[in-house]
This record gives sequence, C-alpha cells and structure tokens, in this order.
Amino acid sequence: MIYLDNAATSWPKPDSVWEAVMHVGKNIGANPGRAGHQMAIDAGRAIYNARVAVARLFQFPDPLRVIFTLNATDALNLAIFGLIKPGDHVLTTRLEHNAVVRPLWILQGRGVEVTYLDGDEYGRISPEELKKNRKANTKALILNHASNVTGAMQDLETIAKAAKALDLFVIVDAAQTAGVFPISMASWGIDLLAFPGHKGLLGPQGTGGLCIMPGIELAPLRYGGTGSQSESEAQPLCLPDRFESGTPNTPGIAGLAAGIDYIHQIGREKIEDHETRLIKSLMQGLSELKGVRLIGPPVEEARAAVLSFTVDGMASEEVGFLLDKAFHIAVRTGLHCAPVAHRKSGTLTTGTVRLSPGVFTTKAEIEEVLASITQVVNEAK
Amino acid sequence: MIYLDNAATSWPKPDSVWEAVMHVGKNIGANPGRAGHQMAIDAGRAIYNARVAVARLFQFPDPLRVIFTLNATDALNLAIFGLIKPGDHVLTTRLEHNAVVRPLWILQGRGVEVTYLDGDEYGRISPEELKKNRKANTKALILNHASNVTGAMQDLETIAKAAKALDLFVIVDAAQTAGVFPISMASWGIDLLAFPGHKGLLGPQGTGGLCIMPGIELAPLRYGGTGSQSESEAQPLCLPDRFESGTPNTPGIAGLAAGIDYIHQIGREKIEDHETRLIKSLMQGLSELKGVRLIGPPVEEARAAVLSFTVDGMASEEVGFLLDKAFHIAVRTGLHCAPVAHRKSGTLTTGTVRLSPGVFTTKAEIEEVLASITQVVNEAK
Repeated sequence: MIYLDNAATSWPKPDSVWEAVMHVGKNIGANPGRAGHQMAIDAGRAIYNARVAVARLFQFPDPLRVIFTLNATDALNLAIFGLIKPGDHVLTTRLEHNAVVRPLWILQGRGVEVTYLDGDEYGRISPEELKKNRKANTKALILNHASNVTGAMQDLETIAKAAKALDLFVIVDAAQTAGVFPISMASWGIDLLAFPGHKGLLGPQGTGGLCIMPGIELAPLRYGGTGSQSESEAQPLCLPDRFESGTPNTPGIAGLAAGIDYIHQIGREKIEDHETRLIKSLMQGLSELKGVRLIGPPVEEARAAVLSFTVDGMASEEVGFLLDKAFHIAVRTGLHCAPVAHRKSGTLTTGTVRLSPGVFTTKAEIEEVLASITQVVNEAK
Repeated sequence: MIYLDNAATSWPKPDSVWEAVMHVGKNIGANPGRAGHQMAIDAGRAIYNARVAVARLFQFPDPLRVIFTLNATDALNLAIFGLIKPGDHVLTTRLEHNAVVRPLWILQGRGVEVTYLDGDEYGRISPEELKKNRKANTKALILNHASNVTGAMQDLETIAKAAKALDLFVIVDAAQTAGVFPISMASWGIDLLAFPGHKGLLGPQGTGGLCIMPGIELAPLRYGGTGSQSESEAQPLCLPDRFESGTPNTPGIAGLAAGIDYIHQIGREKIEDHETRLIKSLMQGLSELKGVRLIGPPVEEARAAVLSFTVDGMASEEVGFLLDKAFHIAVRTGLHCAPVAHRKSGTLTTGTVRLSPGVFTTKAEIEEVLASITQVVNEAK
C-alpha cells in the first residue's frame, strides 16, 4: 500500500514512537502530577520532556507554556475562544481550515467582527493588506502557515512581523507545516502556535498542543482538576496547569516526544527537502497529463507537501476510489474541511484529489503513483 | 511494586489493550472518517466498535451518541457548559471533583445559581433533599456516582429516578465507578454520563467520553473540522460529529474498546466483587491500627474501591513517601482535586492517604500493604 494521506495523519510512524508509547503505558503508566510516587513522577517527567522537545522545535522560550491538547483543533479553540472577545475585530485568510472558520463563525454570532483577507490568486496575504484592513478594534491575525487544500504557504515570517508591528496578536495554525518547515515563534513574533502531534511531528493521534508566549493571557476552554491548588474552586493561574485539566494522554505525549526526537535526529531541513522534492515530482508528472488540473501555486513557488488536483469529467471520489481499489494507493478526496479555501480555489463543488507524501514516502512510490494516476485518467477518456 | 492508585489511572492494563493500540497505530493508523481509502475506513470502524462497547456497558441506546473526549473532565465540561445557561439553577453534592466544582464556579460568575446539597454524614443525598431544594429555575442535578476522596457512593438509581420525576436533567460523573459498578442510563433516567477511559474501563490515558441521551441538545465545547458537511461554516448537527471536531485518539479509543471487552469477558460483577472484597480487607486491617482514622462510610455500607485515611501525627505525604520509598507501594496522598469533599470529611488541611486497588490487585498484595502500613505507623510512634 502506498500512503499519500500524511496531511490528515502521518503514517507510518518511526518505531521509536510506538516504543515510547508502550514503555510509558506498560512501565510508568501512572497519572502524572497527581501523586508523589515514583511511577507518577516518571510519567510527569515523560511529559516534561515532550514540552522541551516542542519548545526547541519552534524556538519557543518556555517549556511550561507548551500546553498539550486533544488535537490541533482543540488548541485552536483554546486560542481563539480564549483570546477574542465580543467587540473585537479579527483578520484572517481565505485558506483557513474549519478548525478556525467554525470557531470564528460562532464568535461572529457573539459580536466579533471577522475580515477574510483575499490575498493574491492563491490566498497569500501581504503586509499591505494587513495594514489596509486593520481597524481600531482589530485584536488579532489568525492564519494557517499552509493551506491543507492547495498547499499554498504564507510568508509567515514577514506576515507575523508585520502584524506585530501593527500591534496585533498573531495566532498560527501550523497543522500542515509543524515538523517540516521552519517556525521561530520568538523571532517572528508569533504569540500562539497551534500544532497537531500526529502529522509532521510524527506522534500518535490524540496529541496536539498550543504554545502560549509569555505575557499572553487566555481564558481556559476546560476547567477541572489539575493536581495543583486542589483546595481552590478557582482554576489555577500557573501554566501548564491552567489549561490542562484532567488526565493527559501520557503515552501519546511520550510518543510525540519520540516523534520530535526523530525529526531532530535526521534533521528537519532534510525532511523539508525530501518532501519538497517529492511534491515537485508529483507536480511535474501530473502537469503532463491532459485533463488534469493542478490546484494551488506553480511548481517554482513555496508549498507544503500537499497537492490537490481535479480530473476533467471525473468526480474526485471516483479517482480516489480507483486509486485505492485498483492500485492500493491511499489519498484523500472531496472537500478537506476548509470551505473557504475550496471557494477560493474554485473547487467547492467538485472537491479535489489530495496527495500528501510524508517523511517515509519514497521516490519509487511517487513514480508508481504517477503511473497509476496516468492509467486512471487515460482509461476514463 | 504494588500499585494502589487505580482511582487516578488503572495500571497495569490487560495485554489486549496495548495490542489494540499497536494494531491500530501500526496497521490502520489513518485518519478515521476523513477519507474513503481502506485504512481510513478500518480506523473509523475501530472507533465505532468502541462506541458500541461503551453503549452496551452503560445500557445506553445509541452508539452514535457516545462522544469521545480527551478525558472525563473534558466530557464534564461539555455536559455542564453545553447544558447550563445563565439564570439556571443547579443542584449538586458535596462529594464532587474539581472537574465539576470548577466549571460550576465559573458558571456562578455568569449568573448560574448552584446549591451544594449537604446530604448525610458522608455527603449522600436523598430524594427528599432534592425535592426540598428544587426551585422553579432548577435545571439539572449534577453528581458523581462515588467520591474519589471518601469512596462514598450515591444510591444513583434512586436519586436519578427521583430527579427525573422532578423534571431535572441528570448529569453523572462516573469517574470512580464506570466499568466496576452497574450503571443503566436508560432505565435509571441518566441524561448525560461522563466517564474516563483510563480508570475502571482499563483503556489508555487520553480517552474518555460523554453519553448523551437521545433528545438532549448541547452546545459544543469545540468547533472545527469533522470530515462531514465540510462545505459549511456551521458545526454539523448530527452526532457524534457535532461534538468530535478534530482528529480523534484512534489508537487510544481502540485500546479502550479492548479494555471494555476485557471487562465483558471476565464479567463486571466479578470485578465489582473482587474490588469490594479487597477494599473491605483494607478497612478491616486498618481499623485495628491505633492512630489511623478511616474516612468515609463504615465497612458494611456501599463504597467504590477507594479508601482514604489519615495517621495521627503524620502528614499524609510522609506516609505516602515512606510507602513508596521503603516498600514500593504506590498510593496517592494529599488533596484529591475535590476541596468540597475534603471539607465535608474534615480533611482539607491534612489531606489523606488514598488506597485504590484495581482489577489486577491481589489479596496477597493487600496483606503486604497492611503489613507495611502497620510498620510505618508503629515506627512513627
């Protein structure tokens, strides 16, 4: 089987990830931070190690402000509902996932103003556009680093710095880039970074998080037991406790730490280079096929390892079905939880076939995929 | 090592639990419900099987209304914030965990009235007390099935039926009983049942859920991608999608299903009987020790497999430290995220030493624990 659905969940994982999950589950499977016995202390240490790994990867100054959540959606909800209040104005883009669009839609019903910046042909925004749309009550810019539909990447460093210069909070959805592309929270001026654990960071599903820069105050999304200040009905103010009520996914978080260690070992730059080469091969190969329309920026421009396309006269689901059944190639088809981005790329009614290679995808697999898609497209004619 | 901290997280787990986690992670590690390829379908099926297992255990009619969450706290936040609105009045008990107390404290600041029912000496409430405290705006009763501090159990069937007769919504925190004691949502009249996956259900940390009876409408706690109705900015109305935004913890949930299967295989009643015998042995043994004060109902009355005690002249942390370091016995000490319950039992300043045996605890271990505690207490004199 050839797996090209890494934009949804990376697969397979490094062996060390499952070894870490098993080690924690079987040997130190206690509740971290809730007791003084050795196994609980070891479990707490496994989670702390993961905070350090995340902080290092994103050049983030304080591991105790790395908050672990169920997934990136959970982290984005915490960031958005925690920061934005009625009367605020928010700038965002037309490339956002429903993890941003749906919370904003709820906030619009509560008196928050939202402006969807048009950006260029591919939805990429500019400092000028930020400046032009900024109002007296503009509180934050919320944007993803790369679109999960088109692969289009924002020039995050430039945009984040421009937003900071306008005194905006910068909330970033790094779902498609974390672990593969460089992100420097401190030097770029990112205030809140939401990341999934189970995509580019190579951890298990059930993990994700939010990095909250020092000085940023948020209302929690969940309240409850934290193993700290247990005598108080009020949620603790200290981090990470304030935002981590209830028992965390200790084995999953240990697996996430192993995933990030793997990235550090082989080098993030090498992964970026590898995935970029593969996606460019796919683009070059598919661009030679008649009836295939590639979505998103041209091959010479920056993109995450995501390539969407449509085939004239074929539903995207049909292409995906044939690839799965006849060629054992796993892709995603249809709409990708991002209606605004589909509207922007003109694929809201057709959906797309999405190919997303990962760190373990080989060049030979990409060639086989190209040959298979060629066959599907030619037989359809 | 003897592990008596099962009330925080059960350990060890059945081997089948980790086998299920590994199988899903390594063989069908795709994103469930987000693609049409075989591996995604298999992942979706693993989660559906878990819904069926949960529904069967709690005699709950609709597997699609079993919502998986990060933990029981997450589930309780969804239930409480989703149902209770400003102007409502809520009845609750003095045995609640901070997963209930802290959300209610926030709601009190938003115009919700909360009455903490005193109950009897051990905090157990009665139908009469419900009736007496019910007001025109009383919307719900929120109660745990058993206290995580004292082990005191509510007569849930009687209380839930009485609350339904008063036209109240019944929200139950089954953190200390799910998987061990009988719970019948349909016939007892429980509307919302929150459960942890990693305690009595024997699943991995990072799992939990909320069963939402048909007809109950809640506001979501999180909004985002669901893999369904992706063209819409509005959160889908159908369940489970409405409450499960973002990628679920598929391997963890598969492990949870295996944990529940294990319970069904050996029989929940047998586990209840086993844990009850062990806790009674502990109570009998400790009651013979001078200077030891047992917290909670007497030995002949119902209690969950949780026993708290204090030792005259010793801090509970000191007792726990000695048990861990000198005897390799893991217990929890201090406050147990339930200040109201500690106040009720007179242990808010001292904390307690808490012993919580599990399905894999043996009679021989209990005897060893009793001998060790005897030694600790005698040497302290």
